[in-house]
Amino acid sequence: MKIASTIDEIRECVRSARRDGKRLGLVPTMGALHAGHGALIENAVRECGYVIVSIFVNPTQFGPNEDFAQYPRPFEQDAAYCQPRGVDAIFAPSAEQMYPRCQQTWVEVEKLTDGLCGAARPGHFRGVTTVCAKLFNIVMPDVAYFGQKDAQQVVVIRRMVDDLNFPLMIRVCPIVREPDGLAMSSRNCYLSPEQRQRAVCLHQALESCRQTFDQGCRHANELIELMRGIIERAGGQIEYVSIVDAETLEPVETIDRRVLVALAVFIGSTRLIDNCLLDLHLPEKCV
Amino acid sequence: MKIASTIDEIRECVRSARRDGKRLGLVPTMGALHAGHGALIENAVRECGYVIVSIFVNPTQFGPNEDFAQYPRPFEQDAAYCQPRGVDAIFAPSAEQMYPRCQQTWVEVEKLTDGLCGAARPGHFRGVTTVCAKLFNIVMPDVAYFGQKDAQQVVVIRRMVDDLNFPLMIRVCPIVREPDGLAMSSRNCYLSPEQRQRAVCLHQALESCRQTFDQGCRHANELIELMRGIIERAGGQIEYVSIVDAETLEPVETIDRRVLVALAVFIGSTRLIDNCLLDLHLPEKCV
Repeated sequence: MKIASTIDEIRECVRSARRDGKRLGLVPTMGALHAGHGALIENAVRECGYVIVSIFVNPTQFGPNEDFAQYPRPFEQDAAYCQPRGVDAIFAPSAEQMYPRCQQTWVEVEKLTDGLCGAARPGHFRGVTTVCAKLFNIVMPDVAYFGQKDAQQVVVIRRMVDDLNFPLMIRVCPIVREPDGLAMSSRNCYLSPEQRQRAVCLHQALESCRQTFDQGCRHANELIELMRGIIERAGGQIEYVSIVDAETLEPVETIDRRVLVALAVFIGSTRLIDNCLLDLHLPEKCV
Repeated sequence: MKIASTIDEIRECVRSARRDGKRLGLVPTMGALHAGHGALIENAVRECGYVIVSIFVNPTQFGPNEDFAQYPRPFEQDAAYCQPRGVDAIFAPSAEQMYPRCQQTWVEVEKLTDGLCGAARPGHFRGVTTVCAKLFNIVMPDVAYFGQKDAQQVVVIRRMVDDLNFPLMIRVCPIVREPDGLAMSSRNCYLSPEQRQRAVCLHQALESCRQTFDQGCRHANELIELMRGIIERAGGQIEYVSIVDAETLEPVETIDRRVLVALAVFIGSTRLIDNCLLDLHLPEKCV
C-alpha cells in the first residue's frame, strides 16, 4: 500500500493504475477511520481495481468555533486499518499541499446548502464541495464513495457532480451503527461513557419516527414532535429535527413523497447527526 | 471533422482520441470565429494530436441587459472555418445540454473578479468559470487555449485551474489585430463603418501608453489620463481605463512590477475591450 503525501505522488499512482486499465475508486475521508469508512472501503475494493483512501482534515469546512484543532488524527491506526482491507494507496496531504496559497476559488451549491447543517454551519458545505472538487481533479476517480450518514453532503455532492459534469459516479453506502444503534462517527470518541449512553437517543428518535410512519402517520409535525420529545428526555440539545424532501431538501408538511428525516443534536459539547429515509411503499391508508 | 451537439457524443470523441494516446487540446469559444480564434486553433493543432473547438454562447455569463440574444451565431461559417484548419471535432451543445435543469452549482473566483470587467458585469465571471469547469470536465483536455484579449478572464481561469487542481495546462495566445490595430472580436461586427474607424482609439491609447512608459514614465495616473484623452477625443465612452498588477489585478500607482493596462470602452452601444502588458525590462531611470 502506497502512502502519498503530495499531489504529484498520488497522481503518479493514478497514472500507473490507469496504464494498467484499472477502474479507480476514491474514498474521501477525514481519517479517524471506523466501520462506517470500512463499509465504503469494502465496496470500493469490491467494485474497483485500484482504491485510494484520502485522509485530510479539511480546514475550509470547519467554522471558527468548531473542532478543527481537536479533530482526531490517528494516522498510524488509519493506515493499519486500510492495509489489510485491500486499499492500494492512501492520499494524506498536508494543508499546505491542498491550499498552497490563499484559496480564492470556491465551488458553491445553492439552495441545497441553506438548511439543515448548512444553516448552523455557514461555509461548511462550500468547504466540502471545494475540497471534493479538488480531490476529484487530483485523483480523477471513476467512482467516489460517500456515507449516507452525511445525508445532506451526499445530496450536495451529487448535485455538484451533475451540475459541473464531473466524469465520475457517486456511490452512497448505508449508515453503519454500533450494536445499540448509535451511528458510527469519528466524533463519538468525544463522548464520556455517560454521554455515550445518552447518544443513542438520536437513533431511538428515528426508530420511533419510522414506526409511527409505518403505522400510517404522514404529518411531519407530529413525527418531529415525537422525536424532539425522545431527544429532550435524554438530555440532548437539539440543533434541528427536520423532515425534508429527499431531493430538494425543502421542508415537507405532509409526507407524500420520499423524505429525509434528519437530526443534529448536541450531547454535551459533541455535535452528532443521524438520519433515515422514509419511502412511500405503504398504501396511503391514513394520510 | 466530427460535429458533436451532445455531451455523450463529444465524450465518445474524447474516449477514442485517448485510446489512440493522443494529446487533447480544447479551444473554448462562443463562435463567430475570427483570426483571433484562428491563432488559438493553429497553436492547438500544432501542439496536440486531437483538437476540439467548443462553440457555446453561454447564457450564464451574460447580464440581463447584455447582448446574449443578439450575439452572432454563424454556425455554418464557423464549421467551415474549423475544417481546413485541422480541427478534429466541434462541440456545439444547446443550452439544454449544458444546463439541463436550473444550475445550482457555481465556481467563483474571489478578488480577481471584483475589478475591471467584473465590476461592470456582475456574475459574468461566475458564468465563465462555471462553464469552463463544465467544459474541462466534459472534454478533459491536456491543454486549453485562451486569448490574451480577455486578459482578466485569463488570470481568473488560471487561478481556478490552480486552486481546483484541474489536470490541464492553460495556454494563452497573443491578441490578433486588424491592420489598423483594432483587436479582433466577435463584437466588432456590431460597429457601423464610422464607429469602426473610431474603434481604433483603444489600440492607439494603448500604443501611446506603451511609448510613454518606454520613455520612462512610471506614474499610472499620468498614463491613464493620457489614454482617457485619446479615447474621449475619438468619442469613446469609457467604462474603465486601468493599470493593475498583472497577477493580482489590483490597481497600481507606480509601475514597479509587471502590469496589465486594460480598457473597456463603448463605441456607440458596442462594448469593446483591449489591453497590453508592460514589463519592467528597461532600466528604471525615470521612476
